[in-house]
Amino acid sequence: MSSLHPFDHATLLDACGEGRLKAQTSDAYWNMVGPFGGLVAAVLFKAAHADARRQGEPLSLTVNFCAAVAKGVMEIVARPARTNRSTQHWTMEMRQGGECVATATAMFGTRPATFEHRPLAMPEATAFANLKRLPPPGPGWIERFDMRFADGPPAWDRPSHAPASAQSLLWIASDPPRALDFVGLAALCDIFFGRIIHVRQRMVPFGTVSMTAYFHATETDLAMQGFAPVLGKADARVFDRGYHDQTAELWGTDGRLLATSHQLVYFRDPA
Amino acid sequence: MSSLHPFDHATLLDACGEGRLKAQTSDAYWNMVGPFGGLVAAVLFKAAHADARRQGEPLSLTVNFCAAVAKGVMEIVARPARTNRSTQHWTMEMRQGGECVATATAMFGTRPATFEHRPLAMPEATAFANLKRLPPPGPGWIERFDMRFADGPPAWDRPSHAPASAQSLLWIASDPPRALDFVGLAALCDIFFGRIIHVRQRMVPFGTVSMTAYFHATETDLAMQGFAPVLGKADARVFDRGYHDQTAELWGTDGRLLATSHQLVYFRDPA
Repeated sequence: MSSLHPFDHATLLDACGEGRLKAQTSDAYWNMVGPFGGLVAAVLFKAAHADARRQGEPLSLTVNFCAAVAKGVMEIVARPARTNRSTQHWTMEMRQGGECVATATAMFGTRPATFEHRPLAMPEATAFANLKRLPPPGPGWIERFDMRFADGPPAWDRPSHAPASAQSLLWIASDPPRALDFVGLAALCDIFFGRIIHVRQRMVPFGTVSMTAYFHATETDLAMQGFAPVLGKADARVFDRGYHDQTAELWGTDGRLLATSHQLVYFRDPA
Repeated sequence: MSSLHPFDHATLLDACGEGRLKAQTSDAYWNMVGPFGGLVAAVLFKAAHADARRQGEPLSLTVNFCAAVAKGVMEIVARPARTNRSTQHWTMEMRQGGECVATATAMFGTRPATFEHRPLAMPEATAFANLKRLPPPGPGWIERFDMRFADGPPAWDRPSHAPASAQSLLWIASDPPRALDFVGLAALCDIFFGRIIHVRQRMVPFGTVSMTAYFHATETDLAMQGFAPVLGKADARVFDRGYHDQTAELWGTDGRLLATSHQLVYFRDPA
């Protein structure tokens, strides 16, 4: 067990029957009042992805964070809702003490060779090696990622003036290093701080309530990415009445868009 | 029945017990091989939204289109997965002949007054009245919407040269006119043609496989919008190995972002 990467340890699934699994929360990926949301997403995704019935490459994942996850056992139910010739749809749910704490859906499918077109180019950013690592504000999940902001770093305690930019551009690498796979990519889709922090430049209560990731890479692409840092870009369009949207891109070092992530984020910041 | 708007007729739900509903497909919103996807989304959304147990304003909706929907009865199961003090999560599924044809989740919640910030402004567009209506290419759902392209109209049969722009900007109004509500807004989130058509400038087989909508408006905002046309903007970032992403905005006439929509779209267009 001790030789396992902490992420692989934190996403270990214990099968209790077909499509019935148990996982354990991990202090290594703990956030302030629950696990790092990306870990909850990764565990739910893995419940479908690692199932022997799963067919095809990952295409989409939606996770609804219904309630704070407490330390201890997470029970997951995962079932294929529909299997077609070239696509498969899954439904997942996470429970604690008989109560639903997260719902999720995922889609898998074959990726045939087709017309290919990439209207959006990878953003330019100062190289990973030439940037400083974000000092972790405390123990837990932030220590598990070497995050280096090329633009739009968070500011936790500046006086509130006019809203600052909602956009961030940062390199992300696992700490300790870990080769990228789809379970890791699912977690990275939730790695971005709520844009409200960047706009307000101070801490306010926030949390992702729903996340949808689209996977544009294949297993082969991720194997090529390996241990190299991923470039992330995040932005938001509207902050209003307790919620803001959030859209993110995760780019591979060869300029390939690995995944896009979309989130609805709750915040409490009085008018 | 004859006084009902065709959209309200097409989204009629017949309760067969708590959270068990039936709807009927409608020729007025038929697409080539199934109902207009926005109608399937609207029916699934309404199954939760119109339920007496629903609490709060609509916040998010994810619909996975698992299989073609055949003409006839659509059976819907909708259940609140988790009810919190200020948020509620729903899980829905649509079945035909015992087989799952769509899965969905939705989130509702209170919208307290908070810090408000809108980094993205409404795009400028030629006025609705000064644009020509898209000639419907055939009967069915496209006749139910008065779509007027200010930029990036579809081209169905141009010879294939270099990829064209994936971006469209268009006004959308119901035909016959209908005041906007959340069920209607859920349908509008899927109104945009697959970006592959715009890029290739010719018809290729395509279909949305997963859609996630975030609602930034409230019931009051939609009441103010009323019968006025909505401005829609759609774009895509990557077309690769059978799928492309798609992101859309739906703007109210007062410059308010009513909803954002994110899609994964299947296409078959050999390399």
